[in-house]
Amino acid sequence: MLSSQPELDACYSNMMRWISDEYHGLNGSQYEVLETPPSPLEFARLVQISRPVLIKGYKVPAQTLWSNNYLIECMGDQKISVAVTPDGRADAITAGQDGREYFTEPHVQQMTMAEFLLKISSDKKGDVLYVQTQNGNLYPSGYFDPSSRDGSSECEKLRRDAPSEISWCSEALGRSPEAVNVWVGDSRSMTSVHSDPFENIYTVVRGTKHFTLFPPTEAWCLKERSYPHATYTCDTPISPLKLSPTNYPPVRWSSIINPDDSTTLPSGAHPIHITLHAGDTLYLPVGWWHYVRQSGDITIALNWWYDLQMRGAQWVWLSFLRGMGKDVMSGNPAQMNNADTTEKG
Amino acid sequence: MLSSQPELDACYSNMMRWISDEYHGLNGSQYEVLETPPSPLEFARLVQISRPVLIKGYKVPAQTLWSNNYLIECMGDQKISVAVTPDGRADAITAGQDGREYFTEPHVQQMTMAEFLLKISSDKKGDVLYVQTQNGNLYPSGYFDPSSRDGSSECEKLRRDAPSEISWCSEALGRSPEAVNVWVGDSRSMTSVHSDPFENIYTVVRGTKHFTLFPPTEAWCLKERSYPHATYTCDTPISPLKLSPTNYPPVRWSSIINPDDSTTLPSGAHPIHITLHAGDTLYLPVGWWHYVRQSGDITIALNWWYDLQMRGAQWVWLSFLRGMGKDVMSGNPAQMNNADTTEKG
Repeated sequence: MLSSQPELDACYSNMMRWISDEYHGLNGSQYEVLETPPSPLEFARLVQISRPVLIKGYKVPAQTLWSNNYLIECMGDQKISVAVTPDGRADAITAGQDGREYFTEPHVQQMTMAEFLLKISSDKKGDVLYVQTQNGNLYPSGYFDPSSRDGSSECEKLRRDAPSEISWCSEALGRSPEAVNVWVGDSRSMTSVHSDPFENIYTVVRGTKHFTLFPPTEAWCLKERSYPHATYTCDTPISPLKLSPTNYPPVRWSSIINPDDSTTLPSGAHPIHITLHAGDTLYLPVGWWHYVRQSGDITIALNWWYDLQMRGAQWVWLSFLRGMGKDVMSGNPAQMNNADTTEKG
Repeated sequence: MLSSQPELDACYSNMMRWISDEYHGLNGSQYEVLETPPSPLEFARLVQISRPVLIKGYKVPAQTLWSNNYLIECMGDQKISVAVTPDGRADAITAGQDGREYFTEPHVQQMTMAEFLLKISSDKKGDVLYVQTQNGNLYPSGYFDPSSRDGSSECEKLRRDAPSEISWCSEALGRSPEAVNVWVGDSRSMTSVHSDPFENIYTVVRGTKHFTLFPPTEAWCLKERSYPHATYTCDTPISPLKLSPTNYPPVRWSSIINPDDSTTLPSGAHPIHITLHAGDTLYLPVGWWHYVRQSGDITIALNWWYDLQMRGAQWVWLSFLRGMGKDVMSGNPAQMNNADTTEKG
């Protein structure tokens, strides 16, 4: 055992800093821009490099078709799950009335597309609405799994306007997506900084998205901690939202609330800013940290999540960079993995 | 600063052990066998996984043409560089007369292919001969570099029998090889365990090669140390070889002399044994440790080295696994990198 936890922490920080400095020294903060979508082979090479790429010219029918009227007509009386928060910060760290910070999930309301678009367009001061269910609301995992009996989803009526897979990505990875999502919100919603265990293809259909990205090597800059879990609830349909602690397990999440505020980041952090306009597509590699804001009256995006490659070293590398091996260093494996902490996102 | 070096070492070992256990837990010791060469896209996916693959059916004319007589006739009076050692251990750790261990390079003799093949076939008890120059003796880097004026090499007369690149590999990686080598030796020669900063395609033309492989995550099991440098020399063409220390910088090399002797390995090591017969090809991914023996009267192999992908995280990951960040952990970056130690191989 090391003599003290501060020593272990210093030892660990020195090493993480060395790794992220080396990575940044080799790669800088550049990102590639492709004027047209890659071939499967070109994309396979980009996946091997695992750095973000801005891809122009990837066309989906949704980009030209998805006006409010079209969406309302197409979706009809189908209910969709809408995240409701007082401040646009769903799945984010928020202080409760007790002063403690919680990982807080949104209140979820069911409504039709017509109701949603009316509310989000007319009420720019009240609660913030965001379609962001992230469960494959366009094509869920069951859609891709031959053994599943349920491939249905809330937005399935929109499927004719967006393909279930992206051929150059599926061929490069040798697999189908795990889930395809539609995101609809306005400039008041944001996504707190986190990373996903997925290769991600992200296309903006309407409006503009602003990504702030950090490589997996800068996980240490984002200071993940364990937070108690809460959800926004409301007692009656017209009562105000309140932050309600739950009995769910704590959630491991970045404690950097606004990574665009550089004063909250260690000097070793090198954020990369990429703005996507309608028609732009981002390859967001597995394990990259992202903080996402949006601008425009209504912003709509689509994303295709592909499972990460579990063979090889990628999972181990990403886990290590997130500090999974840290407590093992002290020779006390029992401390490892924060067994009471749930992974989110 | 940590209070003591043993503490730092323990801390570091615990972490490396965690990483290599996680990696082995996910990947095991399996390797894929392909009955035919992959397409460029299939190979790109294999490169992303970065595990060894035995590839059958990759044909080069050399496999059918390279008899002794053919090689002698084709090479004519062209001299080739032949590594000469007393024991078949070129570029290996060997004890000198002073009892110290040295990283010892072979004596190099120039001779014709006829002289070489006669010696190696007739004298199975004297010094061991091995064509193993590893400098692109078939196609050197200058051959692939448009700005170079010299693409010549010792074995260039054999080029018509082996292509300068492997289409499925060059297309998958998006680059040409860095060097292509011919290896000719007998069962008395071996290659000590080491790793290379190259993606490697290795084809056996005659005889049999026995590879013992370790993933980059098991670098710690191979215990690299800094060794003084030596070379075999002989005072006159007929005097016996002697191990002569040089003034070259020390060399960082594995201290495991025979990784096939499991008693010399830590319990965390998981060697993978792959035997290649004539006509078999190995994809040996960048950073994988390999110990190579051969059997058969004369064993001939070809290998294509492709530079590793310097963009992305691979170089940092491999350096880290080899312990490059270790001394940084203690907060003393000046100790880092063993500045007086040369990388070999």
